[in-house]
Amino acid sequence: MTPLKNDRFLRALLRQPVDVTPVWMMRQAGRYLPEYRATRQKAGDFMTLCKTPELACEVTLQPLDRFPLDAAILFSDILTIPDAMGLGLYFSEGEGPRFKNPVRSTDDVARLGVPDPERELRYVMDAVRLIRRELNGRVPLIGFAGSPWTLATYMVEGQGSKEFALVKRMLFDEPKVMHRLLDVLARAVTAYLNAQIAAGAQAVMVFDTWGGVLTPRDYTEFSLRYMEQIVKGLTREHDGRRVPVILFTKNGGQWLEAMAQTGCDALGIDWTTDLKDARARVGDKVALQGNMDPVILYAAPERIRTEVETILASYGPGTGHVFNLGHGIHQHVNPEHAAAFIAAVHELSTRYHH
Amino acid sequence: MTPLKNDRFLRALLRQPVDVTPVWMMRQAGRYLPEYRATRQKAGDFMTLCKTPELACEVTLQPLDRFPLDAAILFSDILTIPDAMGLGLYFSEGEGPRFKNPVRSTDDVARLGVPDPERELRYVMDAVRLIRRELNGRVPLIGFAGSPWTLATYMVEGQGSKEFALVKRMLFDEPKVMHRLLDVLARAVTAYLNAQIAAGAQAVMVFDTWGGVLTPRDYTEFSLRYMEQIVKGLTREHDGRRVPVILFTKNGGQWLEAMAQTGCDALGIDWTTDLKDARARVGDKVALQGNMDPVILYAAPERIRTEVETILASYGPGTGHVFNLGHGIHQHVNPEHAAAFIAAVHELSTRYHH
Repeated sequence: MTPLKNDRFLRALLRQPVDVTPVWMMRQAGRYLPEYRATRQKAGDFMTLCKTPELACEVTLQPLDRFPLDAAILFSDILTIPDAMGLGLYFSEGEGPRFKNPVRSTDDVARLGVPDPERELRYVMDAVRLIRRELNGRVPLIGFAGSPWTLATYMVEGQGSKEFALVKRMLFDEPKVMHRLLDVLARAVTAYLNAQIAAGAQAVMVFDTWGGVLTPRDYTEFSLRYMEQIVKGLTREHDGRRVPVILFTKNGGQWLEAMAQTGCDALGIDWTTDLKDARARVGDKVALQGNMDPVILYAAPERIRTEVETILASYGPGTGHVFNLGHGIHQHVNPEHAAAFIAAVHELSTRYHH
Repeated sequence: MTPLKNDRFLRALLRQPVDVTPVWMMRQAGRYLPEYRATRQKAGDFMTLCKTPELACEVTLQPLDRFPLDAAILFSDILTIPDAMGLGLYFSEGEGPRFKNPVRSTDDVARLGVPDPERELRYVMDAVRLIRRELNGRVPLIGFAGSPWTLATYMVEGQGSKEFALVKRMLFDEPKVMHRLLDVLARAVTAYLNAQIAAGAQAVMVFDTWGGVLTPRDYTEFSLRYMEQIVKGLTREHDGRRVPVILFTKNGGQWLEAMAQTGCDALGIDWTTDLKDARARVGDKVALQGNMDPVILYAAPERIRTEVETILASYGPGTGHVFNLGHGIHQHVNPEHAAAFIAAVHELSTRYHH
């Protein structure tokens, strides 16, 4: 494979020295970009976009062509695994993801198997291979998956939720069934991420979007435990290079110490925790990725720049920081504001590295 | 006034010895009760229910007639203040609260005045007086208001929000305008809560539902600061008795130490923080109110009982704990599960007090 021209993202995740703080944006290939909306239009619907490697590759590269980002992230969806398990994922316009066959009973759980990534999820692996070829060493490619708990919330609710009444009821009243569900998901995520790594993903991230709706006790038992199982099962070296693993629990700021003990390389941090405090709490165990409120991108470029400076100062000097938003970029953001954000990170961070 | 027959709620808030842990439920007068739905039906719409003291009194007392709760809470809405400021509050079925005249500009903010609670909000004060009379000393009555930041989110967005793009944009791009808005709201909330205390509220609670969507820096500057201003302006003694003040920031578990410094008597805690840790962090500065996940009330009564025991054990022996949910009770909860919850708190907590 072509050697990497820009590896500062991987270096920062491994807390090796860098020239400037690397930056990428969650959901950087998304609706705020007119070229994304055009490709999405061409695809017809969201799932076709995900399932057609050429189109997934096209949108993955779009933000890279516009901005000097330090990483690409595979364009896909966290719900590809439950879809491959036979739940029938679909998107109804403006309503978010839905499943035709939600998981509600012990029998539903017993029927679930671990998909073979190179068969049922081959379209994802083909996209990874194609993107790596097209990237041609410009920046590293990030693979990803949802956490078992997060996948379970959608699978049991059958859609997004605010109260999580059905999935929590399974957790409270039938913890064994819930553990069986989470275990098969952990095995599926492990196989899926390892296949992405084999196909060319140079770092992987686990998105635990909904771990933060649990008590600390239940978070440990039902979310973190399965992320740890995944971390321990991942291929950590490929093509002679370490493959860093990032864990991100939205609203998980209270549990960083425990997350850092899983053996992962980095933690995603949302904007409700100061990076300074986070860094003090995790010490040199892990790198940190974050943590600007994505809504700041609606503000004036000068205000964006001030926030970047505040966050860089909060993390302080030295490596171990990957700049990112604390959540996906919002759809009505002006792409020029994203450009101002990325430029500010590179420009203002030089004095924190030497 | 009639002396209080059951004052363990007030005693626990002031960390005085109690026989058992007092308990009440946020939104205890609500849609999960068939008698509430009947009164609501009779009223026609939600605002008529709020604005008719006899009906507000009726629904306030309904849960007290069913369950041995240790406190009553005024039936009202946090948005009465912006409504009294002229924003035109209305509820469209299934859509939540909306304002006819949202606050979007410097001029909109400049036009806002502090409502006279005994005039524009007289219906609330009349409800407080009536409820106190009807309670006849059974349990204390809690008054409440929304926090300035939380009120501002609805006033600027014009409705509930997930991204808070408009209100955060005002905060980021026009911080002075935002401070002016929050200052008038802090003065309005102070006057409103003091009028509730004068009318008979024996404790007051400030609901900061949306403080948790801010960075720690912005939470301190734009939410906590104004709650502190309110605490300092409140009548703390009435009818020869201390009037405790409770502050509750949803998803504010990372900021308890700062909240405890405001001079309030107690903090509301949601279920994402262990009470044991919270108690260790705030020491003897404040009492704690919480923190069961309201979704547990969907689980089997035996499971509810286990959770109550876990939470009581987490807080540990001694006074200073008011048992509550970490958020309002959900509308599809079986009232018998609420009964099992309340019974479990009283029964299982005796051994933590002596």
